[in-house]
Amino acid sequence: MNITIVGLGLMGGCVGLDLQKASWVERRTGTDLQAAHGETAVSCGLVDAFDPDGTSLALADLVVLAIPVNAVRALLPQMLESVKPGAVIIDLGSTKSAICKSVTTHANRRQYVAAHPLAGTENSGPKAAFSGLFKGKVNIICEQERSSPEALAVAMSLFSELGMKTIFMEPEEHDRHVAYVSHLSHVSSFLLSQTVLDIEKDEKNIFNLAGSGFGSTVRLAKSSPEMWAPIFEQNAEYLGQALAEYIMHLQRFQYFLMKRNTRELFSVLKEANKIRKVLDVSAGD
Amino acid sequence: MNITIVGLGLMGGCVGLDLQKASWVERRTGTDLQAAHGETAVSCGLVDAFDPDGTSLALADLVVLAIPVNAVRALLPQMLESVKPGAVIIDLGSTKSAICKSVTTHANRRQYVAAHPLAGTENSGPKAAFSGLFKGKVNIICEQERSSPEALAVAMSLFSELGMKTIFMEPEEHDRHVAYVSHLSHVSSFLLSQTVLDIEKDEKNIFNLAGSGFGSTVRLAKSSPEMWAPIFEQNAEYLGQALAEYIMHLQRFQYFLMKRNTRELFSVLKEANKIRKVLDVSAGD
Repeated sequence: MNITIVGLGLMGGCVGLDLQKASWVERRTGTDLQAAHGETAVSCGLVDAFDPDGTSLALADLVVLAIPVNAVRALLPQMLESVKPGAVIIDLGSTKSAICKSVTTHANRRQYVAAHPLAGTENSGPKAAFSGLFKGKVNIICEQERSSPEALAVAMSLFSELGMKTIFMEPEEHDRHVAYVSHLSHVSSFLLSQTVLDIEKDEKNIFNLAGSGFGSTVRLAKSSPEMWAPIFEQNAEYLGQALAEYIMHLQRFQYFLMKRNTRELFSVLKEANKIRKVLDVSAGD
Repeated sequence: MNITIVGLGLMGGCVGLDLQKASWVERRTGTDLQAAHGETAVSCGLVDAFDPDGTSLALADLVVLAIPVNAVRALLPQMLESVKPGAVIIDLGSTKSAICKSVTTHANRRQYVAAHPLAGTENSGPKAAFSGLFKGKVNIICEQERSSPEALAVAMSLFSELGMKTIFMEPEEHDRHVAYVSHLSHVSSFLLSQTVLDIEKDEKNIFNLAGSGFGSTVRLAKSSPEMWAPIFEQNAEYLGQALAEYIMHLQRFQYFLMKRNTRELFSVLKEANKIRKVLDVSAGD
């Protein structure tokens, strides 16, 4: 099977790397707007060849879209026209409703599989790619009934090769859930960074005071704006709800703080502690 | 030198463990309200002996207070009365203004050193203690001019034994800085946990969707309420300011989100990215 990976960043690079030894993969070609990304990807073994003009797309059996979600939405319809009959297109975007809607009535919809592997780091670009990013993590496939059984089988081979467990969800349900457990985490981290940078103008002080707690909470604030701004925009409705609830909880906490109501503060923290049980179950899996 | 560690939790336990081989330490005694903590601490080698009644305090050359900040404030004045002449008391609390104020005019103020080693984990209790927690991290000492040179020298021996670099700051300056880089991180994490738990009633979904990003951002929400509620209360003024600014930034972000103003969202994220440079400098030290 000939694979073309569109977008040689962290995600595309990790997919390429993890497919290096897959017996069902004949050739891994990568395409990217940045020639430097292509050169790095080839020299690091993320792909076998770099295709700057995207000519490999017409010959590919499988196309993996590892690009920002606005680019997926813009390119997917025309890409479904230009790939060969029977070729499969899979995207890895963090939003699913807007992307799925963009091809609902497309004649070749069945060649497309809407996926979201829940994996990533705060780093970006092909140099950030490493082997095993996806291993043991969860992949979500949406609208599986709109993909052909053959396309779905190819997607399942891909994600099982990456070591992922696939679950199925409707696009709206997906977007609502990830608004809380992924997108809101990123917003809280980005804005924590902005707040602290805003105040601690003297960087020396952040450096001195940045314990590991701060480093961990603010880690996601290093993430790529090119990737995340379009995600936030496409999931604005659900993320807006999640954000409203987060702000409401923060304001309630601030009210207790101003009242010096330690009993209520304590009870909020005690409640929040319950996340430990949930995460420990997850980590133990 | 005979040392009594008051509070055999994570912090007290780590201090005891790291002093195990210090040549200037004769005997490490621990005291704690919970007998089970004492037994664990002795069996894990965190201290040499457990003193359930605190009788060792009157004989100690050095007393380390590793208890919640409200307990430090309540106990410090009377403790300065009951230790022997020349004995040194050091606290490790995460707030400094209220604690320092509680002993400003105390006759034995010079025997006390107000410290805050910037280290910790989300875990608590003596079982969470491990060797090296403090190594390479920063310790802050406040009002050093109010401690005697002898007391200060003992404190410097202690923190250098733990592998820490000590810097000096006024209590108000300390509290204002840690409000942003430590306390606000904890609040953002506690409330993120509460928001997500509130919505994702079905824990199965959090488990499935909790990527490493969420786990990292919410890690501090596992922290001890017994320790953190009093910290937040004592630093309510500066933390309240930090929280107000954080909420303002979140609301501004939400406004751009509702307007689908991707350009502004992008510019916020780009700004937040600058934390990478700051943290990388810190990590590289």
